[in-house]
Amino acid sequence: MPVETIDRLKAELDAEAAAVSAEIDELFSRLLASREDGRDILFAAMRHAAIGGGKRLRPLLTVAASRLFGIARERAIRAGAAIEAIHVYSLIHDDLPCMDDDDVRRGKPTVHKAFGEAAAVLAGDSLHALAFEILADPATHEDPFVRSELVLELARASGPNGMAGGQMMDLAAEGQDLDLPAITRLQQLKTGALIEYSVEAACVMARLPHDARTPYRGYARNIGLAFQIADDLIDHAGDPSAAGKRTGKDAEAGKATFVSVLGAERAQQQARFLVTQAIEHLADHGEEADLLRSLARFSIERSH
Amino acid sequence: MPVETIDRLKAELDAEAAAVSAEIDELFSRLLASREDGRDILFAAMRHAAIGGGKRLRPLLTVAASRLFGIARERAIRAGAAIEAIHVYSLIHDDLPCMDDDDVRRGKPTVHKAFGEAAAVLAGDSLHALAFEILADPATHEDPFVRSELVLELARASGPNGMAGGQMMDLAAEGQDLDLPAITRLQQLKTGALIEYSVEAACVMARLPHDARTPYRGYARNIGLAFQIADDLIDHAGDPSAAGKRTGKDAEAGKATFVSVLGAERAQQQARFLVTQAIEHLADHGEEADLLRSLARFSIERSH
Repeated sequence: MPVETIDRLKAELDAEAAAVSAEIDELFSRLLASREDGRDILFAAMRHAAIGGGKRLRPLLTVAASRLFGIARERAIRAGAAIEAIHVYSLIHDDLPCMDDDDVRRGKPTVHKAFGEAAAVLAGDSLHALAFEILADPATHEDPFVRSELVLELARASGPNGMAGGQMMDLAAEGQDLDLPAITRLQQLKTGALIEYSVEAACVMARLPHDARTPYRGYARNIGLAFQIADDLIDHAGDPSAAGKRTGKDAEAGKATFVSVLGAERAQQQARFLVTQAIEHLADHGEEADLLRSLARFSIERSH
Repeated sequence: MPVETIDRLKAELDAEAAAVSAEIDELFSRLLASREDGRDILFAAMRHAAIGGGKRLRPLLTVAASRLFGIARERAIRAGAAIEAIHVYSLIHDDLPCMDDDDVRRGKPTVHKAFGEAAAVLAGDSLHALAFEILADPATHEDPFVRSELVLELARASGPNGMAGGQMMDLAAEGQDLDLPAITRLQQLKTGALIEYSVEAACVMARLPHDARTPYRGYARNIGLAFQIADDLIDHAGDPSAAGKRTGKDAEAGKATFVSVLGAERAQQQARFLVTQAIEHLADHGEEADLLRSLARFSIERSH
């Protein structure tokens, strides 16, 4: 691919990422407007965590996948915001002293550092509920069957058989010598399930039957793993200002990662292979899949 | 009412409460069966908190209200289990050291005491997601519109404009001199919203239009307050073995309660008045409302 094309695709991806971030921020600003009745700290804590930070990777995936099926942008943004609310709640809880005990997130103090632990627990719980409130609202989709399936699949992806279960496996794995299949399974639950859901949400809104979703889920699974490897490489390289959070944590905690098991070079090769695979899943699509292709292609070049 | 009738109604209520508890336990036992892949502590923590304890007041309300509309029992139990999952997650998080810091709940060690704080945070989060998974599952109701509305209303009742917001108000109120309207508003969010939803869930499953739900919401609002006053009276009386948890906490924390504002005697009178009001909301119903009437009548005589 000519360098000019690569530059153009990258610029388009960056522009769309910025647009999605702004739209998500706008929606959260409306939903999380200040309350002055003893809940002001709660809403301030939610805004601190949910607005103006992060890569918005998951909503961007939902928007990009929605392009394949001609889903209205407003709907994709609302579904993406629900997914981001789940992601943000999990970050707030994971950062707590009793979990990963982190002071910095997305370049800002973590919620419990800025607002106290009790407010952090409740801000996480509140964003968790908000996610389902957004999805079940007729404004997200006029078909109640779609709303109900959006909720069901998000609950599965984020609960004990998805994200929360993966976080528990991660805590249990500290100091354990996990092999590649075990790490892959852990990451599939901890981060993969929600990334897969980000693409599947578009399939649900397009009323795609389950068997027609296979390539899109395959795409999502591949880039979910590629992102994780990229994250592990960033943590391994150890530049906190690029990461926006503390680095070198995994080695410190004695956690097995893709990099510790494969070595940095093979991990990088594996990430590239996963990106190629991800793009192959989109072979039946034309230009409408370019954003998803760019997302995959540039996913392992993230600096933060 | 003759003493024999009162005894019979009380026995019927107790029998139904025991039956609902057993059915809820059975459903949770199925949904929370052990995992042996690093998530065993998570599932054990969820079972510890969700199975074999508590009054099951909220599912009992859903079952009792479902009788008014001929809703199949299995559906009422599933909806009730979702509500109980939300209630239990909130207890787990409220008991954390950074919140109310309690060691005993329902006569057992709290989850963080038995399994550690990290598992407690994640067990709460997992039960939270599970609640929405149960409601959005077609097994709960065949009509996707009903499922979607069940989810929407539960998310509202439990999130920042419901239960979680009320818990924040409660924390912010420590040492503050709240008046009666402020305490009522706090309790309406913290415990009232979920109790109201427990009755409304039956209305949703019966596809009752919003304006036809008014008497049932009125009933629920009245008994929600009556329950809270009864709880405050138990905490005030201070018998931990009857309460199954630490008592005298509110006075210790400098929290204003119905009892501290009204005094024990006027609080008791107010609770009785609320029960009478609650029962009046059911005037259009015959025998099918007897369980709801008994629930209201005996609600303020609870010893635990």
